[in-house]
Amino acid sequence: MDRQEFALDVAAASTLLAPQSIVVVGASERSRWATSMLGNLDRHGFGGEVHLVSRSGNPVGGRATATSCEALGQKADLGVVLVPADGVPDAIADLAHTGARSAVVLTSGFAETGAGGAALQQRLLDAAGEAGIRLLGPNSLGLMNFVDRVVAWATPIDAPSSSCGVGLVSQSGATAFFLAQMAAGQDLAMSSVVSVGNEADLDACTFAAALAADPDTRAIALFLESVRHPERFAAAAAAANAAGKPLVVLKVGTSEVAARSALAHTGALTGDDAVFTGVCERYGIVRVSSLEDLMATADLLARTGRLRPGGLCVVSNSGGICEVAADRADGLGIEVPPLPPAVADTLRAAMPGYGTPHNPLDLTGGIVPAEVERIVATLGAAREYAAVLVPFYGVPAGDPAEDLRLADLHRHLALALRDLPAGLLVSYTPTTLTPRGRETVASLGLPYLACGMDRALTALGHAFRWSRHPARDELASGQLWPIAPTSPDATIRERPRTEFALLELMGRHGVPVVPATLVTDEAGARAAAAGEGPVVLKVSSADIAHKTEIGGVALGVVGPDAAAEAFARVSAAGRAVAEIDGVLVAPMRERALELFVGVTRDPVWGPVIAVGLGGIWVEVLGDVAIRPLPVTPAVVQHMLASLQGAKLLAGARGLPAADFDAVAGAVVAIGDLALRFGDDLAELDVNPLWVHGDRVEALDALAVWR
Amino acid sequence: MDRQEFALDVAAASTLLAPQSIVVVGASERSRWATSMLGNLDRHGFGGEVHLVSRSGNPVGGRATATSCEALGQKADLGVVLVPADGVPDAIADLAHTGARSAVVLTSGFAETGAGGAALQQRLLDAAGEAGIRLLGPNSLGLMNFVDRVVAWATPIDAPSSSCGVGLVSQSGATAFFLAQMAAGQDLAMSSVVSVGNEADLDACTFAAALAADPDTRAIALFLESVRHPERFAAAAAAANAAGKPLVVLKVGTSEVAARSALAHTGALTGDDAVFTGVCERYGIVRVSSLEDLMATADLLARTGRLRPGGLCVVSNSGGICEVAADRADGLGIEVPPLPPAVADTLRAAMPGYGTPHNPLDLTGGIVPAEVERIVATLGAAREYAAVLVPFYGVPAGDPAEDLRLADLHRHLALALRDLPAGLLVSYTPTTLTPRGRETVASLGLPYLACGMDRALTALGHAFRWSRHPARDELASGQLWPIAPTSPDATIRERPRTEFALLELMGRHGVPVVPATLVTDEAGARAAAAGEGPVVLKVSSADIAHKTEIGGVALGVVGPDAAAEAFARVSAAGRAVAEIDGVLVAPMRERALELFVGVTRDPVWGPVIAVGLGGIWVEVLGDVAIRPLPVTPAVVQHMLASLQGAKLLAGARGLPAADFDAVAGAVVAIGDLALRFGDDLAELDVNPLWVHGDRVEALDALAVWR
Repeated sequence: MDRQEFALDVAAASTLLAPQSIVVVGASERSRWATSMLGNLDRHGFGGEVHLVSRSGNPVGGRATATSCEALGQKADLGVVLVPADGVPDAIADLAHTGARSAVVLTSGFAETGAGGAALQQRLLDAAGEAGIRLLGPNSLGLMNFVDRVVAWATPIDAPSSSCGVGLVSQSGATAFFLAQMAAGQDLAMSSVVSVGNEADLDACTFAAALAADPDTRAIALFLESVRHPERFAAAAAAANAAGKPLVVLKVGTSEVAARSALAHTGALTGDDAVFTGVCERYGIVRVSSLEDLMATADLLARTGRLRPGGLCVVSNSGGICEVAADRADGLGIEVPPLPPAVADTLRAAMPGYGTPHNPLDLTGGIVPAEVERIVATLGAAREYAAVLVPFYGVPAGDPAEDLRLADLHRHLALALRDLPAGLLVSYTPTTLTPRGRETVASLGLPYLACGMDRALTALGHAFRWSRHPARDELASGQLWPIAPTSPDATIRERPRTEFALLELMGRHGVPVVPATLVTDEAGARAAAAGEGPVVLKVSSADIAHKTEIGGVALGVVGPDAAAEAFARVSAAGRAVAEIDGVLVAPMRERALELFVGVTRDPVWGPVIAVGLGGIWVEVLGDVAIRPLPVTPAVVQHMLASLQGAKLLAGARGLPAADFDAVAGAVVAIGDLALRFGDDLAELDVNPLWVHGDRVEALDALAVWR
Repeated sequence: MDRQEFALDVAAASTLLAPQSIVVVGASERSRWATSMLGNLDRHGFGGEVHLVSRSGNPVGGRATATSCEALGQKADLGVVLVPADGVPDAIADLAHTGARSAVVLTSGFAETGAGGAALQQRLLDAAGEAGIRLLGPNSLGLMNFVDRVVAWATPIDAPSSSCGVGLVSQSGATAFFLAQMAAGQDLAMSSVVSVGNEADLDACTFAAALAADPDTRAIALFLESVRHPERFAAAAAAANAAGKPLVVLKVGTSEVAARSALAHTGALTGDDAVFTGVCERYGIVRVSSLEDLMATADLLARTGRLRPGGLCVVSNSGGICEVAADRADGLGIEVPPLPPAVADTLRAAMPGYGTPHNPLDLTGGIVPAEVERIVATLGAAREYAAVLVPFYGVPAGDPAEDLRLADLHRHLALALRDLPAGLLVSYTPTTLTPRGRETVASLGLPYLACGMDRALTALGHAFRWSRHPARDELASGQLWPIAPTSPDATIRERPRTEFALLELMGRHGVPVVPATLVTDEAGARAAAAGEGPVVLKVSSADIAHKTEIGGVALGVVGPDAAAEAFARVSAAGRAVAEIDGVLVAPMRERALELFVGVTRDPVWGPVIAVGLGGIWVEVLGDVAIRPLPVTPAVVQHMLASLQGAKLLAGARGLPAADFDAVAGAVVAIGDLALRFGDDLAELDVNPLWVHGDRVEALDALAVWR
């Protein structure tokens, strides 16, 4: 896939989502899907013509039907196809008579059912290709475009109050429906919902990129079961980043491929899920783990966009709620900075008798609405805060006459919050809006989150991290983060088989390596050990991967005599199990930080690099950061900072702090070198990468070839 | 506090919660609290007499009032007091004329406002003591006893459909109200809600214990801002455990006392929060971190009780939902075992064309209700599963005529689920029940969770951990887990000031210690090093805590000559900074696991013990388990198993697996010894506790005295 091809697909997806006229092929009175589809189109106010095609020619819902598109003799932009599976290819061919450039295929029974269905899906694709028709589906539940009032969906669904907000793309149609239902209940603003089904033609990533270009879509929510086309996923992320729009992903179904060929030490760690986490980090994608967080996070980010510098301010009418918020924010790493002195003074004057104002601020239950407005406005004006979250009573649900006070409160809150860049009212716990609640929110322009404080804080945590992504500016500029080459061209033909040859080659390609000598006799060993300081001797053989286990390593060898003795010992140990090339002699480095750097090949994402502290950090804690290759120095620094053991890199336990630039340079060089070997490379491990302040050296390396 | 005193308090709390007659003191037309209180009592059907006292004598809500309780001349069990703060003590004295044994004081302005309020609170307590009246409050919002229809609460609140379920006790009245509102919206069964306010007399723990004795309370939810009386907290936990009822706690406001005197290495780690976590682990208490999880977990446990052996089975009508559930369960450590072959065969026969059945089981959207019932019943009968969770459509909210199919589905689901020990239907995401939804749930006896699948799975995770607590049986029997002695009697008078003296004393009291000799000259050092193997020399001085830093330690010393030289060196280094007693000589142990064991004094919980792997595990990861003392071997084993580095104890990196019995014995002995020093002991560190298989020895120890 090249960029131009992707751009054409994205344009086709945009066209598909915004038809001026529709033909429903396979309509019938008995089909609940067809009647729901027609009901949705009507109820949501689709303004264009809707034609019906039914083989029987019987009317549906009182409307005339044609027996085929050919017989219909009308133009249509989009075909909605519901005919039985084996009739779908012919229906697409027939659809060409309307001039339609797009079709949504709701019918199931294609590739998801096995080989026979896959063949049928190929026939469908062929028919579509011949007709010049682009496809959503098959096995889709349809699309909801609330902006243009195109709700071509198979089950009845309510509209959101506002269509300027979240665009949702889902590989599971049922899940998309449940999410849209939840969004409707919480009156969450949504622009579009797309159920991509089997993705025979246009895929989820393509629709995500199309939504990134839609002015009414402020954030994109993506529900993924698998990534079929990683390069399209990267392209969608790039499109979202270029548009400055957050892409929030819930990916399910961690695969069980952990047992595949992987890094010697991190086999269990480079499972798809850890790699996908790295991919999301790399592309500045927000990854969430629940349906609620998917929608709450996308909704919050759709409202706030990128947060300005500063921390979070929390204001509530209950001390208990303030404490829950403070604990949760702390757990999420959200800063809740104290009130600036000037603000505290202002509040003290505004809140006589309320004691010392803090952040979170407890207004207490006795506060009157006008005071709430004044205080929230004061806090919102403080440059120290990027966002103001107000957990307070939910919007009224019942009889208006009974809660005048509550209505007054929300009016004042709306006045204080609605013009702030990130001022949000949130219910204490999840609520469902009644028609009156929706009316309150709409008429006041109240920035109201019905998801409850806990989800809102989770969403804010994501919003802060997304906004503060170390490469956010570069991501937005589109300069950084090229699409990962999943099948790089091999530009290095050498295939070193021994540690010595590999270290030597790495040194030639910009990786700092320990100066090592290959010796083949005791005299050589004596000469190599003649310098100052202790040396290490390691047997060299293409057939011995684990030298220590067979006694093939001698550490801390001092002087020529000891070197000769060690040579005899390790070479004998090596020869006992395999043919050897000789013995490697290298200076023994002092105690320092030891990193593990490994490149492996993920079946989906291609070459990926893992960086971690060695030993227990990897073996017991699985503390590694993974990214698709290539990486840049900024990416590596981000990886290092994300490690649980990052504190050690800052110079713990009597060792100098690691020079992050030097480490990043070495890791980038290792990654670049791995790519240049091309597909032949199964695995490249540097273990350890020795780090002593700004001195960085690969002390040992291993390549595995396919 | 002794057990009898607590039992009397619990009885008083039970009496307070179930009055037969009430007098509201301070009623007035203008008081919203008074009118809400009267409205609640009426609406929820309180069957006893309600008298009103108002200084003015004016009627309230059309009811006559007396000017005082004395003037009233009627009996009442409970007084509800709303008069202004400075009139409360007199109002309590007046209340005695009704013969009331209990009062709820809603008035605020007591200890929560500072010293003046604290004095007034003491006057209130004195008045109550004199009148023989036990108190809830002051600064309480009241109580809701849905079982006996006593809803004496200051703001309007709806009743749950069922009063056999969760009892809630809260230190924050506002939070209790928000939680009760959420529970009403989700139609969650609740027995009682108690707002304990300032806890001047009866505290939250006492009410929790009272609810443990209430047959309609199946689980207790506790919202805590602080633990005022740790021994009462332990007593409440013991009462809940003895009744076999889960106690679920949300504690907020992690205190900032981390800087207090604490363990040398774990100062930052023994903050209240980590100690509280240890307390909860110790007493088998479920600790949650959000309002939603508090209610969802208590509700789920109220329904299921202790789960039988087995894993979780998940059944839904969407593959996407099944995958979200599987990932979440995995993240929570919930086992989702595959279908037993016989069950799989049965399902294959029942679901022709649906492919291979798995757990989670995707029934697909096309399944008919009767099939759903048959399949769920089959799964529920399988002994392999402790619980069956069915994420499916929420109960219908709209027009009954429009969703006959949905109503039929829920009827079938109820038939399959309602008699299972832990069969639960859950909405995909949080929902609010409409009156029709409540009616559906009630009439079908549908075990329905409206909290959404994500919260339900979190709750199930807690339910599995609670049910499988290693000491669950002992906790239930009340045999284990005595109440922690926060001020133990000192039974050891010695106060060893040097490492040698401390090791010697520890050895006498059952702690395995390394055999060490104190020598005062080179000849002594020679003699002590004359045996086999290398020795360690350490300067001995009451004034040198960090021996290594001043050059006061020599490691791996072999033979008498080297020992003499090392003696000279370390004793000189010691003398350069302080007076010394001599030099300690001990065998140098081989490489092995090194644990850190530390006893410190928590300002709330008294003596606590921390156990962890030493070095980076404590310093970088904060990987320690903490418990209040005393501990038993079973408790220590639970602590060891909970460490992030537990894998190392099983014998990683060429070391023999730690003998958990031997380690537990040593840790228990250290904890018991620490208690016997009494309050004088500020800190006792054993670092390292050397562990080589079943050989366990304290190699170094430090005591800090107050």
